[in-house]
Order: sequence, then structure tokens, then C-alpha cells
Amino acid sequence: MSKFALKIFSGKSHEKLARDIAKRLKKKISPVEIYRFACGEVYVRALETVRGCNVFIVQTATANVNEDLMELFVMIDALKRSFAKRIHVVMPHYAYARQDRVALPREPISAKLVADLISAAGADHVISVSLHSDQEQGFFDFPVDNINCMKLFADYFKKKKFKNLTIVSPDAGGAKDAKKFADKLGATLAVIHKARPAPNKSAVTHVVGDVKGRTCLLYDDMVDTAGSICAAKDALLKHGAKKDIYVAATHAVFSDPAASRLRKTGFKEVVVTDSIPIPKEKQFKGLKVLSIADLLAKTIESVHDDKSVTANL
Amino acid sequence: MSKFALKIFSGKSHEKLARDIAKRLKKKISPVEIYRFACGEVYVRALETVRGCNVFIVQTATANVNEDLMELFVMIDALKRSFAKRIHVVMPHYAYARQDRVALPREPISAKLVADLISAAGADHVISVSLHSDQEQGFFDFPVDNINCMKLFADYFKKKKFKNLTIVSPDAGGAKDAKKFADKLGATLAVIHKARPAPNKSAVTHVVGDVKGRTCLLYDDMVDTAGSICAAKDALLKHGAKKDIYVAATHAVFSDPAASRLRKTGFKEVVVTDSIPIPKEKQFKGLKVLSIADLLAKTIESVHDDKSVTANL
Amino acid sequence: MSKFALKIFSGKSHEKLARDIAKRLKKKISPVEIYRFACGEVYVRALETVRGCNVFIVQTATANVNEDLMELFVMIDALKRSFAKRIHVVMPHYAYARQDRVALPREPISAKLVADLISAAGADHVISVSLHSDQEQGFFDFPVDNINCMKLFADYFKKKKFKNLTIVSPDAGGAKDAKKFADKLGATLAVIHKARPAPNKSAVTHVVGDVKGRTCLLYDDMVDTAGSICAAKDALLKHGAKKDIYVAATHAVFSDPAASRLRKTGFKEVVVTDSIPIPKEKQFKGLKVLSIADLLAKTIESVHDDKSVTANL
Amino acid sequence: MSKFALKIFSGKSHEKLARDIAKRLKKKISPVEIYRFACGEVYVRALETVRGCNVFIVQTATANVNEDLMELFVMIDALKRSFAKRIHVVMPHYAYARQDRVALPREPISAKLVADLISAAGADHVISVSLHSDQEQGFFDFPVDNINCMKLFADYFKKKKFKNLTIVSPDAGGAKDAKKFADKLGATLAVIHKARPAPNKSAVTHVVGDVKGRTCLLYDDMVDTAGSICAAKDALLKHGAKKDIYVAATHAVFSDPAASRLRKTGFKEVVVTDSIPIPKEKQFKGLKVLSIADLLAKTIESVHDDKSVTANL
Amino acid sequence: MSKFALKIFSGKSHEKLARDIAKRLKKKISPVEIYRFACGEVYVRALETVRGCNVFIVQTATANVNEDLMELFVMIDALKRSFAKRIHVVMPHYAYARQDRVALPREPISAKLVADLISAAGADHVISVSLHSDQEQGFFDFPVDNINCMKLFADYFKKKKFKNLTIVSPDAGGAKDAKKFADKLGATLAVIHKARPAPNKSAVTHVVGDVKGRTCLLYDDMVDTAGSICAAKDALLKHGAKKDIYVAATHAVFSDPAASRLRKTGFKEVVVTDSIPIPKEKQFKGLKVLSIADLLAKTIESVHDDKSVTANL
Amino acid sequence: MSKFALKIFSGKSHEKLARDIAKRLKKKISPVEIYRFACGEVYVRALETVRGCNVFIVQTATANVNEDLMELFVMIDALKRSFAKRIHVVMPHYAYARQDRVALPREPISAKLVADLISAAGADHVISVSLHSDQEQGFFDFPVDNINCMKLFADYFKKKKFKNLTIVSPDAGGAKDAKKFADKLGATLAVIHKARPAPNKSAVTHVVGDVKGRTCLLYDDMVDTAGSICAAKDALLKHGAKKDIYVAATHAVFSDPAASRLRKTGFKEVVVTDSIPIPKEKQFKGLKVLSIADLLAKTIESVHDDKSVTANL
Repeated sequence: MSKFALKIFSGKSHEKLARDIAKRLKKKISPVEIYRFACGEVYVRALETVRGCNVFIVQTATANVNEDLMELFVMIDALKRSFAKRIHVVMPHYAYARQDRVALPREPISAKLVADLISAAGADHVISVSLHSDQEQGFFDFPVDNINCMKLFADYFKKKKFKNLTIVSPDAGGAKDAKKFADKLGATLAVIHKARPAPNKSAVTHVVGDVKGRTCLLYDDMVDTAGSICAAKDALLKHGAKKDIYVAATHAVFSDPAASRLRKTGFKEVVVTDSIPIPKEKQFKGLKVLSIADLLAKTIESVHDDKSVTANL
Repeated sequence: MSKFALKIFSGKSHEKLARDIAKRLKKKISPVEIYRFACGEVYVRALETVRGCNVFIVQTATANVNEDLMELFVMIDALKRSFAKRIHVVMPHYAYARQDRVALPREPISAKLVADLISAAGADHVISVSLHSDQEQGFFDFPVDNINCMKLFADYFKKKKFKNLTIVSPDAGGAKDAKKFADKLGATLAVIHKARPAPNKSAVTHVVGDVKGRTCLLYDDMVDTAGSICAAKDALLKHGAKKDIYVAATHAVFSDPAASRLRKTGFKEVVVTDSIPIPKEKQFKGLKVLSIADLLAKTIESVHDDKSVTANL
Repeated sequence: MSKFALKIFSGKSHEKLARDIAKRLKKKISPVEIYRFACGEVYVRALETVRGCNVFIVQTATANVNEDLMELFVMIDALKRSFAKRIHVVMPHYAYARQDRVALPREPISAKLVADLISAAGADHVISVSLHSDQEQGFFDFPVDNINCMKLFADYFKKKKFKNLTIVSPDAGGAKDAKKFADKLGATLAVIHKARPAPNKSAVTHVVGDVKGRTCLLYDDMVDTAGSICAAKDALLKHGAKKDIYVAATHAVFSDPAASRLRKTGFKEVVVTDSIPIPKEKQFKGLKVLSIADLLAKTIESVHDDKSVTANL
Repeated sequence: MSKFALKIFSGKSHEKLARDIAKRLKKKISPVEIYRFACGEVYVRALETVRGCNVFIVQTATANVNEDLMELFVMIDALKRSFAKRIHVVMPHYAYARQDRVALPREPISAKLVADLISAAGADHVISVSLHSDQEQGFFDFPVDNINCMKLFADYFKKKKFKNLTIVSPDAGGAKDAKKFADKLGATLAVIHKARPAPNKSAVTHVVGDVKGRTCLLYDDMVDTAGSICAAKDALLKHGAKKDIYVAATHAVFSDPAASRLRKTGFKEVVVTDSIPIPKEKQFKGLKVLSIADLLAKTIESVHDDKSVTANL
Repeated sequence: MSKFALKIFSGKSHEKLARDIAKRLKKKISPVEIYRFACGEVYVRALETVRGCNVFIVQTATANVNEDLMELFVMIDALKRSFAKRIHVVMPHYAYARQDRVALPREPISAKLVADLISAAGADHVISVSLHSDQEQGFFDFPVDNINCMKLFADYFKKKKFKNLTIVSPDAGGAKDAKKFADKLGATLAVIHKARPAPNKSAVTHVVGDVKGRTCLLYDDMVDTAGSICAAKDALLKHGAKKDIYVAATHAVFSDPAASRLRKTGFKEVVVTDSIPIPKEKQFKGLKVLSIADLLAKTIESVHDDKSVTANL
Repeated sequence: MSKFALKIFSGKSHEKLARDIAKRLKKKISPVEIYRFACGEVYVRALETVRGCNVFIVQTATANVNEDLMELFVMIDALKRSFAKRIHVVMPHYAYARQDRVALPREPISAKLVADLISAAGADHVISVSLHSDQEQGFFDFPVDNINCMKLFADYFKKKKFKNLTIVSPDAGGAKDAKKFADKLGATLAVIHKARPAPNKSAVTHVVGDVKGRTCLLYDDMVDTAGSICAAKDALLKHGAKKDIYVAATHAVFSDPAASRLRKTGFKEVVVTDSIPIPKEKQFKGLKVLSIADLLAKTIESVHDDKSVTANL
């Protein structure tokens, strides 16, 4: 048992998730005043003492990612100056995760920048879920707990007892993760990639690997505009895949026009987590949301009690 | 003359000001790609080399202050990783300037936080205009050039050759600056303050100092919602001030309902600077905008040429 | 209750205050050897273990401020290298507090420099009293507890049951604080300011606000050479204030010729705190010293026990 | 043209490459004393002044990687304390590059650690070649130039005018890079992956993608023990690939038993770069070494002259 | 009693010493996987949780000092990222201790570099034994416990009840320590120094101080190649010292040809500690090893329990 | 030739030395306002621009060492915030140099603290003279030029053409430096050390080495209270040294009662440098002051022009 009080604060980005986590920990969300001044600036004030407390701030990256981040930084500053013992940032969907390298000359590495800003604001630790690349843990000088959701998805799909299941990576970059997932489910692997046969010809989508007559499950870390997975469906059908195609992805970013595309394309199921809140107008038939509240609650508890995080998941 | 190339970059917050500055320096704005991904994240890429350059990024705090800041941080990161020699942030209206102290327990000091974030992103120097409090220079570990606009306003009002001019501070906190401005114009000082005669009675606005039959010029560093200056007008008239009342303020924050209040209240003139862009729908009769582009261009030139900034203003 | 031992160390600047604080905490000052070598260098050695202790060092800024500071830095270094858990600096009168901004080109920001030096020496936290400007909390990267003495003064003066009390700020810069104090006592506000009617004429002292027939209480954060408050008395009398004039100020800096001026001017009472020791030869009739030992002891206790500091004051 | 002298220093790890780079820059390697004391410690001393110089230290990671690193750190310290203007580390094969993430609980991120140590020693910039993962640039707080060798290989293989060429990634993790290379050569892609059909059955190597009757070119960033590419050859032949199989890989790590395996397996050609020196006893028939000296020389020149690095490659 | 678990990890450099320390603390060495990849890189993984633990890593500098250091840094990184509460490095023989100053222009200060690297890797505290120079404690920003072995040697030699004992420093640099040791044993002091009577003449070894008919004990902090102490023996005999000459030195570096020289020279006793493991082939008649395991165990215990280290030794 | 302007500033501690240095560089001291407020705080303001300049601040440690240091820190802050390119501290007599290690438990390492404070204030480089211990260079993270005066003294004494000269170290700690100086002059070495034959007996001063009929020159890095060198004279005479005894020491600290002791003891010559100003009342017959202005001017010139410092001395 730990000797410091554990307190959970929630930013505005995903209050439901924060409440779900707190409920599992038999805790209340600590009261905090958060609003925007008329001029657009964030105002934050903690409404109870945090001196010597182990503070966890739940804030995820939504479509208002820049607001989410600045609000987080201001919260961290307020809690740091109020003498919190240790400040843990719980950011299930890590902001700017895909901007993790310089792809073209003179680009930023925004995922590293976000790590630097979180540290500069005063945080001591980050808990995130399915980071876009594993290397992002190394962007921090302090420890990072990167919770993997693969088991959550595997447990869900095992119950379906598919025969002839093929895990499909929608692009070459995701092949490695897709392979791990395939191994977990005893499935085969296929990779989709686009190639341009010649500079002046249009790109052709190839399906590398056998999908004929098989149940296909597209696996990725996130669904953003849903362009590539919707295109993938066509290609899979063309190569003889079974009609019912599944999607599994941790982060439901669902930028426009994701919802309309997914409605139109009609997957059998699109399984995501609640790492990002999904507003009503972006929900659709076949959408299935698995909750990560339990995983996060267990992690917070282990961190607070100085117990192994991995042993408990 | 300096030995490094000077380059000027502009964020999205105030491109006109950046162009005006560049024009005075006989320079072009350096090309840069800036846009939002569908998911809300900023993308930035400099389109020409900045290796070994002295880079100035113009970005002010507008009503989208959090977007402005994150965009700035991403730009700094991109330029730092592209080997810019030195990165100067030109932020005429400094973000979160008023949150410069802990007024209530467990508040942040967001103005200091912004300083920390700018430094963490990789900037080397900040140029700002009429910082809300002079102490904010001390929030930075590196030099800050804080351009004062008082002379700009003094030159403007001297031409009006007022007799019996009184500079009025709309609250006790601004008395010190108002006094300096009054000295510059050979005017007298008045201070407005509100007091509650007893806990259960309503506040009464007092005018400390003599305004009877005098031309009053309300002086402040910014106009936000315009509540206090509009209330001030009533009080001044009640105390016998001349009917034509003026306002001078560096930063035209103009949060709602500033524009409608100012229109209704009807000052003779509301004189501000272009430190923040004022959209059409917030403009009104009597609004007068003085440009700081020249002051900033001179400052940038002095900084680049290692000459005294103060000697040139 | 806290799990680490609390130890109180005292520098040479104000041993009486340290003892008074310790007494209220039912503690003894921890033994330490402090002396100057013949060559002028400070020598410090802690005479009992501080491993894992929560150490509070009491050292205020006196007329020997540079000696006080270097002695403090050497003490911090000694305790840091001896494995103190956390080092808290209790500096009631913060050194160089008024040099908090660049007023003329090429000036230092010495109040920020002192913050940097305290941090570089190895301190983790500062407790101070009535900082000259609130923004100075933002000069530190770690939390600062800034104890306000306004309540101490208000309690003292409330007992006098003045009628027609006016709080007078001796200059425009202090108007804001004076107003807060006036509100606390249900008093009115007046502000004194000097103006030069024309460049070649001598300055005239104005009293902005009504003092006729009223009891005046000059309020400031410190009394240095006492020049401005003594001049203020004349101006107040000239404007018809009652003869008995009071002064309240937290820090009794009393630089020469403060004592002789105050003796000559003859205020009814000059009420200060013991944030700085007042040597016999600087004491005079009408001087009243309120002790802050109790406030500081409560703060230290709250800090040590991880309880809200503000809730206890 | 730059205003500081450019000096090139070489550690002991790859003196030939350093000389080749220097020759292209029409420079001499700067003299430095480097040896081991009898007790195993490195001794370094620069034998000519480096005050105000732009210093480039060439040191790659060989089989004595820990000696290489410590020697590098000591060199950096010597040059930093001798007032070098800027210290650039040229490390073609980046040490510990593959340990770039926490794969199992309680592992280090050694590639990030190396970045931290290089910075702590005092370097200002790193130039490397084909970093194992692009994200590793984000492990540094300062700019990193990551030279890509893909063009070098593409130019080499284009001359062979293969028909029906397939680029083969030896595992799922490399699929993304292999695809880029395939696009550059107008080739198709195949990916090899191993799967275990059931927990208690032995793994089966799959070739995902079509290789029948095609010329196969295995593409990876490095050849370590050569186990996977040798196994890949068998699988490719079994799937009907043409007999002459090629290998292209930037870093010839060639740990035992790489050389004997490669000799036995008999690829048509194994094309690598000289990023690591290949001792005589590890060379074999079919080995072809492309030099990166020219690429590095151009990069150093661009860096020194503050010109775009990417524009020159 | 402390509130965190104490865990002891051992690098590969001196596992016996680590076990001896652990035994005295009634602890087991915590399990850790350490090996070299075929490519020479170190791999480390802690095999049990260290969250919230007070971790002590035992690693000394042997003849493979660079391997020892890199292995240490990787261990620290692994434990830091696994959330160890505090990481203490127990390095009895401090690496690069003699390179503690710039003796010739453009040399490094490698002992300071090692301190910087240990800090950069993430350690919080260092425990070492008989540092080559006391000033090296000041190379660290955090506390260092420098255990002195003088008492260990004094206790050992007191039992011999020598009459007419002279402590001999083998060079002028060690005179100060030798004098302290002489005082402890009530012995006289002699200092050996070499001088060149004229530039073109060969150096002559002088014995400064009286040794005639006295028992001589050569005292130094380490024996490296044993050249100077073996030469010292001749000089002492020539000056009439008694035949049986003793050597006492904390660190048995024993670089080649130390062992053969010492065998040939034939001291009565060469007394060292086990701060460095001495392989069989370097042992010889007259070698006596005193263990520091007890001293280190007591120190670790005091550190862990926040008790005075010096009071317990 | 360098591209930045060189400016020399002087603190109050040793203006004559600063002027002498400037004269040799054909420069004027840059104007600066330095005074104490009535409250004891230092005020500093540079009176000409330093933007982009290479600034050298001359400030030595005198008997007012704490005032000297705080004044220096404030000067550095003022120049840093005024955009000086690089700030070099020229401190011939380094403050707190002898407190360079923890001699007794719970002592500070004040010499390291001073290094930390100089860095925290914002300096980039230190030039000092004959540092008390060579290891102190390692207390800084940036380069330090430590000018050795041994050659200055050697040149002076060589002209005297002594026969039978013996260099005497007044204690064991200085034996190493004394030996180097003896080698330079072709002299022999003697070391003085005090020992207590038994705990309750008084200490006896021993002269280790032969001085009979020889000219003795006591050599040390500084003369503080002159106690040990005056006692040394007696011991040397008792051992038959020639009557005329010389003293050479870089730093004339001359704390009370040094001057009266030296007058009484009557050395033939006491040769020091002007690293510290010697007030009239501390001068005496036989005192000879060698100037280091030329050495420092050459060093400053080399630093400014990026030339080897050691090559020019």
C-alpha cells in the first residue's frame, strides 16, 4: 500500500472515461474549475489541496487536440505549483503520435515536441495506450507506461471462433503489428500495398498474401479518415475474400469523412476502444466500442502502489 | 552588418502584420506549409533552407490563442531541427499575459508556463509589445525585448493639442502606467476604483482625482470585453468630465461583447494597435488602429545587426 | 502526519525569528557551525545528520544582504551534499525584491537572478512574506509559498475602531494593494502621486482622493529610507487629514536615514513586522512590531504535513 | 562560405573512412593522440588547437562498440574543454540502434541512452546513415542528419537492368522500407514472415507476395548474423524464385557466424556500404562494398557552409 | 526504518563483492539478465519489479573499464525506465579517477566526464571508495559518499606493533595522504621524489625524510603497474631502511606487468582491498586482501535508512 | 581576427588590474554604473550596448569576497539580458578556492558551489590564475583557462642566480607543486610537516629534506594569515638554512594578521602577484609584486581571436 493520497483529475477532453476509471478505483474525480475566458485562454484552478498527492490527470487527444494539450499544460502547472508529489498524465490517445519522424526535409518531430512540452510543464510520468510507434517511449526522459490493447481485441475476436481468419494490414508500415496479432489469433497475414507500375500510370492496390475465401480482419492502430481501410475492403473482395469484413483499431479518430465512409462501405463490425470519445453523430451501425477504463484503472493502481504494471494486465 | 541570413516566417495568426514588417525590411516572408490535418493536428514544413539563419517567427495571440501557440511550437521545432542558427519569436500580444501570478490558491502562473513552453520548443529570444506586467521579462532565462507603445500613443495624442487633459486608469492596478503616460503628455491623473461600502451592499464606482470639465483619456494595456472602460465612461460623465472621452490601449483583444458595448457606449475615439488582427465584424466607428510594424521592423533589424534596440526606437 | 523528520536551521541573519518559529513548532534549532574565515569566506557545517530530513533554513535579507545570500547558498550546498530530503528556504524578506524588471536598458532582473541562484544552490522550495510583486512567484520553477501579512495588519487596526479611515498608497504603483487593504477594513482609498507640471518646474505632490478630516493610514510593502512616506505626511496634512497619521508596512528595511526621518516626522504609529531584525539604534517611539513567527510556523507545519497552507492561515 | 575553420578528427574505429572523407574535402585528419593505458582507460589529447573550430569526429560502431563509444565521449570532452565552436559526431553506423524500444518489461531503450550520453559528453549535432528507425532522430534534442543510402543502392542496381525484379523484406518489420525501395526501382514487393501454425508446432516460413520466376533482392538496413536472410533464400527458392538472389543492406555488422553462413549460402551478390570496416577474414566472394565517403563529405561540407544538406545529396 | 524496498543489483564486473555485500545485508542479489549480443552490444533486463524501490547497483572499474561503464549505463537506464525510486551506484574503484585535471593542453577531464555520464544515464547517488582526489566529489551535482579505507589499513597494521615505523609516499603528490596515515599510526613521514639534476643528466630518486634503520610502509591509493613502488623499494634500501618493506594501497589495479614486478621485487606484504577482483594469475606471495564488503554494506544500510553514514563507519 | 567586438568590464574589486589589462589590449574599460542602494543591494547597469559582443568581466576575490561575488552575478545577469554574445569571467583569485572538498562530514564544497552560481548567472567561460587545485577546472561544465604563474616566478628568481637553492613546501599538500617549481629552477626540495608525537603532546615541526647551508625559497599558491610560512622560517633556520629566506606565492590574500606577522618575521623577499589588490596598510618592506596583467591580456586576446591560449604564454 502506498503512503500518499491518490487523486484523479480530469480535463475536458474525455470526462466519461475519467469517471469510469475513477469508479473502478472507488474514487471520485477531484474537483477542478476549468473554463475558457472570453479571450480564448484556458483557466484552471484545483478546488482541493494536492500537497503531497500522487495526481493522475486524464486527458486524451480529440479533434480539438491543441485545446486539449494547452488545457493539460495549464492543469499540470497549477498542480505542480500547488505542491503535488508526482504528476502522472493519462493520455490514452497520444497527441501528434503519427508525426514521429522527419519524412520530408524541414519537418518537425511533433510527437517528440509534445513529449518535451509535457515535461516542461512539469509532469513526471505518462500512461498511454497503443502508441503509434514503440520508439515514442524513448522521446521521454522519464518512464512511460504504454498499455497495449492487443489482448483486449484478441479476447473479443476469439469468442467469434472464426475459421480461416486472415489479419490484414492496410499498409506495409503496419505489417509488423498485424503479424503479432495474427500470431495471437492463430491467423494468417496479408498486407495491402499500393504501387505505381510506372511514373505516369495510376496506382494499383495489391494484396500481398492469400485472402481467397477467408474471413478478413483489417487491423490498425487507428482509424482516421477511414480512406485506406475502405479502399482495402474493395481490394479484398476483388481478391475473393469473404463478404463479411471486420475492422479492429484502438483509436477511433474518425476525422471527416470517416463516419460517412464507414456507413457507406458497410463493414460487418468496426471494433474500437473508448480512448477517444465518439460523438453521437459519428456513430453508426456495426460500431463496437471496447472500454479501456479497466486497463487504465489497474495501471493507475499498480503505479500508485509501486507494483509491477505488466504483471497485472 | 550581420553575417547570417535574416529570414522571417509567419504563423497563421497575423499574416498581414508579418507582411508589413517584412516590407519595411525589404524582405519576403519565407515560404512555409502550414495546415491542419483532418484530425485537428497542425502540420508545418519550411519550404526553404534555414541552416545557419537568424529566423524570426511572427505569431501573435488571437482569440484562437491555443491554436496559435501549438502552431508556434511546431514551427519552432521544425526550424530548430532544420538547423536554424537562432530562433526569435515575435509575439506582439503575449499569450496568457494576464495570468501572471497566483491570485487564488492552486491557480497556475500561465504566463510563466507559456515562457517555459516557448523555451522547451527551442526558441532563443522573444520580442513582445507592452507586456501586461514588466516582471514577465523575468519569466524567461533568455533576453526578451519588450517594446513599449507609449511613445506611439503619445505622439498620436499630442497632435490633438488637448487642454485640461486627464489620463484615467480604469482600475487601481493600472495607476502606475497611467501616471507615466500622464507625465509624458503633461496631463493629470485620475484612478477609478470600485468599492463595496458594506458586504451586503452593491459596489460603488469611485473616481479618485479631479475630472470636472476635463478631457478624459482612458489608458490601459488592453481592451478585452470592454466592460470596465464602458462603466468608467459613465462614472466620468457623472463626475463632470467633458463629453468626448477617448480610449487608448495597445492590445485590441475585443472579446465578445466588446464590439457591441463599444458601439453602444460611443467613445469619441478608441485608439489601439495592430498587435492583434481585428476582423471586420468587430470594427466600429471611432476605432483607430496605429501600426506597430515599423517598431517591430526596427527592432528585428537591430537584433539582427547586433545594434542597440533601445537606441533605435 | 509526515514520514520524514523536520529540521530547522538558521543562518546568521535573524536567529531570533528562527528561534521563535521553532518554539511554536516545539522544536530546537538544529546545530550548525557558521563563521567567516579571516579571508572573508563563509564556513558552514551542519553538526547533526540531515539524511532524509525535510530541512527548513531561515534566512532573511538584511542590510548585509550579499553576506546573507552567500551564507544561505553555502548552507544549502552543505545540506544538499549531506543528503537532505528536501530543502526549504524561509526568506521572509526576499532579497533584491524590488529589482524585478528592466526599468532602464541594460539593467539586470536581480530578483529573478536570486531565484536562479537559490535553485542552482539546490533548494526545492521557498517560503516568503509579502513579495514585492506577485509575479515573482513565477521567477521560480518550483512552488513558492508567498505569505500575505494583510490579515495581520487588518486584525491589528480593526481593534482601533477608526471612523472615517482612508488607506493611502504613497505612490501609484501601490494603489492596487492599498485598495485591497481598504476593502478589508471598509475604508476609502487615496493615492499620492508626484507630477512635474512642466519640464523645468519642480514636482508637486498630489493627493488623489479625499482625505479631509479623515484618519489616514499609509500602507506599503516596505519602509526603506522612509523618504516618500515622510513626504506623504506633509501632503496629507496640507489636504486636511487628521493629525494622527499611521503607517503599516511589512518589511522594516529602515536604511539610513529612515530612523532619524521617522523620529523627526512623528507618525502616531509605524507598524511593521519582524521579517527583518531591527537593531536597537533604529528603534523609535511609535514603532510597533507584529510578529510573523506564528504565520511562518503554521506554514512550515502545513508544508511538512502535506496539508493546505492557505486553509490554515 | 563559412567563417570558422573546419577540422576532422578520427577515432580508432574506422580511420580509413575518415581519411576517405577528408580526402574528398581536400583536408587532412587533425592530429590526435589516442591510446589505452595499461589499466584499460582511454587517453585522448588533441595535438593542435580547436578554439573556435567546427569539429567533426568520425567514429562508427564496430564489434568493439563499447570501446568505440567511450573513446568518442572522451574525445568530445577533450575538444569541448579546448573550446571547439561546435562538435559534430559522424557515426555512420549508430550504436545500439536496434534497442530503440521496450520490447519486454524492464528493458532499457539503449538507443536513446546513447543519444543522452553523446549529448552529456558535449556534442552539438549527429550525422548518421540509415538509422534503424526514423524515430531515433527524435531521441535527440539537437538536429540530426540521417543520410539515407537508398539512392546509392538504387543507382547500383538500376545498372543491372533486371526484369521481373521483386524486392523482398526478410521480415514484416522491414516491409515499409522495402516497399519504398521497390517503388524506386519499379519492382514488386514480397514479405517473408514466420508463423507457428499452433503453439506446439514448429514455425513455418511464409513468403507473402509472388516471387515465382522473378529475380529477388533481399533488402534490409543491416546484416548482423545473416541468419534470417540465409533462411530467406531457401524459402524464396522453394517458392520458385530465380536462382540468383541478391542482398542489399547498409550496415555490414557481420557478427559471427555471418561470414561463414554467407559463404555457404552463396548469394549472387551481397551489397553493403563501408559504414563499418570489414576485416579481411570476414570478406567473401560476391561481397560488394559501396562507399559512403562521398555522401558524408558532401554532408559535412553543407553543414559547415550552412547550406541545405538534402539539396546536395 | 525505511519505507521503500532495498534491492541490490550487480553488474558483471565484481559479482563476488556484490554477493558479499548482500550477504551482510541478509539480502539476495536481484535477478537480472546481462549479456552481449553477437554484435558486441550489451543487453540488460531486470527480472523482477523495481517500482518504487531503492536500488543499489554494484559495479567497479576493472581492466575492462569501458565495458564496465557501458554496462552500468544500460543497467541504470533499464532501472530508471522501470520506475526505480532512486538509483545508487556503488563503484568502489571509480573509473578514470586519475584523469581528474588537464595536465597538458587539450586533454579531457575524464573523471568529470564519467560523473556526467553516470548522471545522464539517470543515477541519483554514488558510493565510492578512496577516490583518487577528494575534489572528485565536486564533479557531481548530487551527493557522493566517499568511503575512506585508511581506518581499515590502520587497524590491520596496528596489530603488527611496529617500532620505528615510517610511512613513505612514493611521490610528492601523495605526501598529504601519507602524512594523515602516519599521524593515525604515530609514525614518521618520508617522501620519495625524482629529480633531474640537469636537463641532460638522468633522474635521481631522492628520499626526503629519514628512513635509516626504520620499518618502511609505502602508502598509496592504488597500485597500477607497480613501477614506482618497486623503484621506491630500491631507494629505501639504499638509504638504510630495514629489509622488510610493506605496501598498503586501496585499489589493486595490477595492470601488466604489476604482478611479475611485485613477485620479483619481493615486498614483505602487499596489502590491498577487494575493490577490484584480482584474478588468480595476478596473485602472488605476500598479497593480502582486506574486504570492504562490510564497510559498503553498512553504508548502504545507512543510506537506505536515512541514517548518518559517517557515524556508522 | 575575430568578428565580434571585444568589450572589457570591471567590477569594483580590482579596477586597477582591469585598467592594466585593457591598456595592454589598447582598449578602454566599458562604462558601467555600479553602486549599493542604501539597503545594501547592488545596482548595476551597463552604459553602452553589448549586443553580440564578446564580453570579459574582470572581478577577483578580495576580503569582501561575498560582495565581489554577488556584484559579479548581477553584472553577468545584466549583460546576459542585454544580449551579450558570450560572457567571460576573469577571476584571477578564484573565490572559495580552498573549500574544494568535504574534509569533515556535512561540509559544503563551496568552490564547486561558486562554479554552479557563476554558470547559473549566465557566464560561458572562466579565466583564472593558479587555481588552488587543478581539479577545480572539472567543477565547470564549460571550458576554464587556468593560467599558471610558475613561469613568472621562475623568470624572476632565475635572475638572482642562487646557488644551493632549495624549494620548500610549507606543508605536505603543496609538495607536488613545490617539486615542479624546484625542477624548473634546478633546485632541491624540502617539505615541512607538523606531527604530534603523542595525542597529549604538542606538535613538532619537521623539515623533511636537507636545507643545511642552503638558500630556502618557500613556495605556496597563496599567503593567507602567513602563520605557516612564518613558523616555517623558524624551523628552516633551526635546521641550518641560510639566513636570507624567500617566499613566492601567487595570491596575496594577506588576511589579518598577515601583514604584521610578515613585518616581524622579516623575510628577505615576499614575492606575490597583483591577482588581489594590496591596500597600502598591508604593504611592507621586502614585498615585491609581479603583475599578471600581461598574461591575462594575452589570454583574453587569444580567446577572442580563437587562437591557442597555451601557445601564446
